[in-house]
Amino acid sequence: MKITSTIAGILTLTILLACSPSGNGSQPAATADPLPSWIDGDAKQEILDFVARVTDPASSEFVPEAERIATFDNDGTLWAEQPLYFQLFFAIDRVKALAPEHPEWKTQQPFKAVIEDDLEALVASGKRGLLELVMATHAGMTTDEFERIATAWLDTTVHPTSGRPFTDMVYQPMLEVLDYLRAHGFKTYIVSAGGIEFMRPWTEEVYGIPPEQVVGSSIKTSFEIRDNGSVLMRLPEIDFIDDKAAKPVAINSHIGRRPIAAFGNSDGDLQMLQYATGGDNPGFALLVHHDDAEREWAYDRESHIGRLDKGLDEADARGWTVVSMQDDWRMIFPLAD
Amino acid sequence: MKITSTIAGILTLTILLACSPSGNGSQPAATADPLPSWIDGDAKQEILDFVARVTDPASSEFVPEAERIATFDNDGTLWAEQPLYFQLFFAIDRVKALAPEHPEWKTQQPFKAVIEDDLEALVASGKRGLLELVMATHAGMTTDEFERIATAWLDTTVHPTSGRPFTDMVYQPMLEVLDYLRAHGFKTYIVSAGGIEFMRPWTEEVYGIPPEQVVGSSIKTSFEIRDNGSVLMRLPEIDFIDDKAAKPVAINSHIGRRPIAAFGNSDGDLQMLQYATGGDNPGFALLVHHDDAEREWAYDRESHIGRLDKGLDEADARGWTVVSMQDDWRMIFPLAD
Repeated sequence: MKITSTIAGILTLTILLACSPSGNGSQPAATADPLPSWIDGDAKQEILDFVARVTDPASSEFVPEAERIATFDNDGTLWAEQPLYFQLFFAIDRVKALAPEHPEWKTQQPFKAVIEDDLEALVASGKRGLLELVMATHAGMTTDEFERIATAWLDTTVHPTSGRPFTDMVYQPMLEVLDYLRAHGFKTYIVSAGGIEFMRPWTEEVYGIPPEQVVGSSIKTSFEIRDNGSVLMRLPEIDFIDDKAAKPVAINSHIGRRPIAAFGNSDGDLQMLQYATGGDNPGFALLVHHDDAEREWAYDRESHIGRLDKGLDEADARGWTVVSMQDDWRMIFPLAD
Repeated sequence: MKITSTIAGILTLTILLACSPSGNGSQPAATADPLPSWIDGDAKQEILDFVARVTDPASSEFVPEAERIATFDNDGTLWAEQPLYFQLFFAIDRVKALAPEHPEWKTQQPFKAVIEDDLEALVASGKRGLLELVMATHAGMTTDEFERIATAWLDTTVHPTSGRPFTDMVYQPMLEVLDYLRAHGFKTYIVSAGGIEFMRPWTEEVYGIPPEQVVGSSIKTSFEIRDNGSVLMRLPEIDFIDDKAAKPVAINSHIGRRPIAAFGNSDGDLQMLQYATGGDNPGFALLVHHDDAEREWAYDRESHIGRLDKGLDEADARGWTVVSMQDDWRMIFPLAD
């Protein structure tokens, strides 16, 4: 598994720059391809061109380092999301574990679907139903306890069809984009409809994105004093669903700057991409199009999970970058495909 | 005015470390006093001791750099807050400018108090009333427009008694604490009941704290597409009041880590200090006690603004650091007192 650290990256780069034996900062280094998993083509070139434009001080589109904010959706953009958002497998396991204490779930959707292993009914309950399932089964413990539960589950559970740990099912080409942007002064954030506290325990190790740069959906919490300290209790009440038009709102709340690059894969990311491209700075918008049924999954306009319909039309109309996983990516997952 | 940048600080430090001519990392540098505006005494020593304990790898209380989160209240902790929270002077000027369009304000508190220059009635409307005033007068424009309005006001308005710009009325000893912590690997955050978007335009220049490390109260916003781009409209509806038990909640939401040091000055900060000291890591809690009527203001248990009552008792019971502005601070503001 790829381990990346923003801070370590900055420091290493700085030490190299500061102590370069040649002492000649203007001499170009022998540069390896920064995006080796990307096949040479339009998508790759558009990424490289954008970064070149905003980081060249002589360019009319130069953006100071502090304003180089890049936001990434997670499900379907940085890791896979089929046959269900991965967090739902966690929720399903939690529902089954907690079901004996909740007899009412036997007749109440989407819990009934989970208990009866009816995936189709579960998916049909829609994104909001799915989020409610997640939120309801993620409450009743402290934030510290939840982190331990989620981490233990991720460490011991594998994906139903690949048999791999879920954190192995991240996209190698996107890991390269994250590294490439950070090496050029970008601060990388996750802005996902997934649960913020489900992601934070592992995003630093897997993506090089620390917890404070992860934005997501949340349930309410309550501060409580205990005999041996203080805790935040997780309440069974939705606080914020970080999807669609709520993504720009959450970006403004958590970051306070408009991103200049946004990466998504579904109509849930549309407004985030509109926000990144709708300001004074040059904006870059990229959609990952899942069109590789052989190495991953193929789905778009009709899918319940990760539907990409309006986004494809808008990308076409506005010249956004659309990545064909089949044609643009040499490999999908970090391990051999 | 002091201009500080976290990133620049890290890079400078790194270059110095990486290129030290002596090449001997273990040799102590000639160290100037990192807190020159602090009089030698318990408070100063407790700060120095805490930082030494958590940054010494040989210490049993060592805390890795990524977990060195320090949170600071703003009003009364980093800058002054008398005779009113400074943001209220902005709100008052906005109410007066907008009053012709709002005839109903003539009979409605706290607007009536503002229009009639009745400071006492305004203060008596309480923190929630004051926040409502702020929120109501800060809506109806885009986030970008609000930033311009707030910045223009701060650039052109002075404090009613000192005659200085509000951003000059920051506490020099606290600026030194911010720098000192950052030089020891801490990430510094503001966690304030003040408006998040009122603070973000100037906190980087004044405190060295970038917008993404500022947490505060907020009104709701709505994403809208315009002919020439996209905006967030500010709505006249309170979203979050970042005070008391909401501070740990906001810290968890924005940062996702428990602070190991928290700095406040009023009972509104009590839970933040309980949170910082209530976890597994060693925690440091500090209260600024306003007891210097000559150089600043003296107020605590009975004050409407910045009341410090329960906090003093809890600090006494738990051994928190209490700073006497009179006895512990050589100077108050960066300019000559």
